Amino acid sequence: MDRRSFLKTSALGGSAVAATSLAAPAIAQGATTLTMVTTWPRGLAGVWDSVERFTNNVNEMSGGSLIIDPKGAGELVGALEVFDAVTAGQADLYHGADYYFVGQHPAFAYFTAVPFGMTGPEIMTWYYADGGMALHHELGEIFGLKSFLAGQTAAQGGGWFRKEITSADDFKGLKFRMPGLGGKALAELGASVQVLPGGEIYQALSTGALDGTEWIGPWSDEKLGLQEVCDHYYPAGFHEPGAALSVAANLSVFEGLSPEHQKIIEVAAAEAHQHNYSLFIANNGPALQRLKDGGTQVHEFTPDVWDAFGAASKTVLDGFMDDEIFAKIRESAEASMNATAGWTSVSDSTYVAQRSRVNGM
Amino acid sequence: MDRRSFLKTSALGGSAVAATSLAAPAIAQGATTLTMVTTWPRGLAGVWDSVERFTNNVNEMSGGSLIIDPKGAGELVGALEVFDAVTAGQADLYHGADYYFVGQHPAFAYFTAVPFGMTGPEIMTWYYADGGMALHHELGEIFGLKSFLAGQTAAQGGGWFRKEITSADDFKGLKFRMPGLGGKALAELGASVQVLPGGEIYQALSTGALDGTEWIGPWSDEKLGLQEVCDHYYPAGFHEPGAALSVAANLSVFEGLSPEHQKIIEVAAAEAHQHNYSLFIANNGPALQRLKDGGTQVHEFTPDVWDAFGAASKTVLDGFMDDEIFAKIRESAEASMNATAGWTSVSDSTYVAQRSRVNGM
Repeated sequence: MDRRSFLKTSALGGSAVAATSLAAPAIAQGATTLTMVTTWPRGLAGVWDSVERFTNNVNEMSGGSLIIDPKGAGELVGALEVFDAVTAGQADLYHGADYYFVGQHPAFAYFTAVPFGMTGPEIMTWYYADGGMALHHELGEIFGLKSFLAGQTAAQGGGWFRKEITSADDFKGLKFRMPGLGGKALAELGASVQVLPGGEIYQALSTGALDGTEWIGPWSDEKLGLQEVCDHYYPAGFHEPGAALSVAANLSVFEGLSPEHQKIIEVAAAEAHQHNYSLFIANNGPALQRLKDGGTQVHEFTPDVWDAFGAASKTVLDGFMDDEIFAKIRESAEASMNATAGWTSVSDSTYVAQRSRVNGM
Repeated sequence: MDRRSFLKTSALGGSAVAATSLAAPAIAQGATTLTMVTTWPRGLAGVWDSVERFTNNVNEMSGGSLIIDPKGAGELVGALEVFDAVTAGQADLYHGADYYFVGQHPAFAYFTAVPFGMTGPEIMTWYYADGGMALHHELGEIFGLKSFLAGQTAAQGGGWFRKEITSADDFKGLKFRMPGLGGKALAELGASVQVLPGGEIYQALSTGALDGTEWIGPWSDEKLGLQEVCDHYYPAGFHEPGAALSVAANLSVFEGLSPEHQKIIEVAAAEAHQHNYSLFIANNGPALQRLKDGGTQVHEFTPDVWDAFGAASKTVLDGFMDDEIFAKIRESAEASMNATAGWTSVSDSTYVAQRSRVNGM
């Protein structure tokens, strides 16, 4: 995913319609209505599901006393304007991927994805039981936000290539689309990194303007038709091994809600995180099978490529370590990730590998 | 875990105090109070956390209009009597592991764990996005229950052994503690399977009455002191690769609740599932490290052992296939599991293995 694609694929993306005043939550007929702007085109498969899951559950659990009204990107403000709209009180909440806001603070990347970072289940563990949520609150509050994870795409695929990758040298000069900190890492390997919106990828690959691309995962990638213009797919990627989505409320608005409405938002957001993870995983498996059945060649990067990914990711993350909050959040996330992997790599991973082997999968 | 351990480790376990009539939910001062019996000794680490998480969130989200009052095993009814107590209307809900109720219906095993079954994240995917929850409701409703997953221990360890296991033949005559369908599978390998309550395991290993045991995972096993009486630990096991816990309400009581209270129970249960998974994982990693630092030797079963586990598990599950509902639920679970593993084994698992290698973990 990337920032600009959501601006450009949305009909109204990028045009600020922020003049509408939403300074105070609307209260009518005993109900509180909050306006939630989002970084997503209305209806975007998978991602918009987490918006609807969250808002429907809030509305239903509150018996209609708290209504959250979601707006697609561009309906009130453009995708990347949601952060400023909520901190300024022009909207009450946003739903988006917090790594779009690394310009506001680089540590927001940890609440979506960083290269060589955590998988979906590892993010869950860190966030809900190992200090992550408290750090999200601490970071958000600097900007007048109350932040919660509220969605999860799970692992994003390593990407699509017109030619097979056999060594890290193959990235030198490769015209590859990858946004964010992952893209910066790939540039360290000599790739010509480009950031195209989703709607332009297919044509760029067809004409040779691009040699390859990442998008989201098999479910979403198949919808873009990437299998028609690239033969080679690498399911495992280094750039977004898990990708969380967030809800953030204006802190004053949040603190003005009743304790039950605050708790409803917190629990509905967490439930949406788990549900969205499940939804992406449930759809990625069958989509990958369809891609294979259709002739896509599935590969794994070689160890020397992974070595290069690891070193480049470290270089990129080290570049932000002068920032005290970034350093604190990185340390917390990596300590949790390493401890979790120390257990799951010898329990879940070993089990799944043996089960697959025994069952002939 | 096993059924009897919770009876025997609970002070009042096994004694039915079910005469108290709870036929209708208590309503006082505008609040509905529901009594929730559980299969757990009050305060049992990890598991009781999911009870408290669920009940606190229900109470807070409802603004005190719905109070769920949890009872430890033996406080109202014994651990294994909770199913009958709720179906009979003597209590309003239970919190427990549904595989304790395979006597009522063998398919309940799928809503906790079956040997060679799903990991925690795979259960999540099946349950929340691939048909599992609807099947849980369908099965529960046969007995007058409305059932929801509400906790998750994640992978349970393969177990503790006094001597290293080098082939499937080593299980012949081995005195090993393993309850449930996993234990039945181990018996197929020739093991002398025993089911001792948690409080008796340490002594049985000390005296040689047992050659080995499984319990829960590093966090819980360390509390029992198993590392003091066994040198060899196998983190990856076949018997409970994930283990879900459930909340089930009396169907009439549930249907008598307001739509908002019904939704609050559903969402709070799902949130407790994710939170509990995170809690166990977050604690298992550091506990495994402490065990290793203390001298425990950590091993992986050899492929021939896994082959034997797989064949024995299939034999045990095949034995229930005459039951139409069991067959339907097994088919749904295995189709989801295989599709999920088809994706995660080439994305998450590959990524984590390479990250561990690159980072020298």
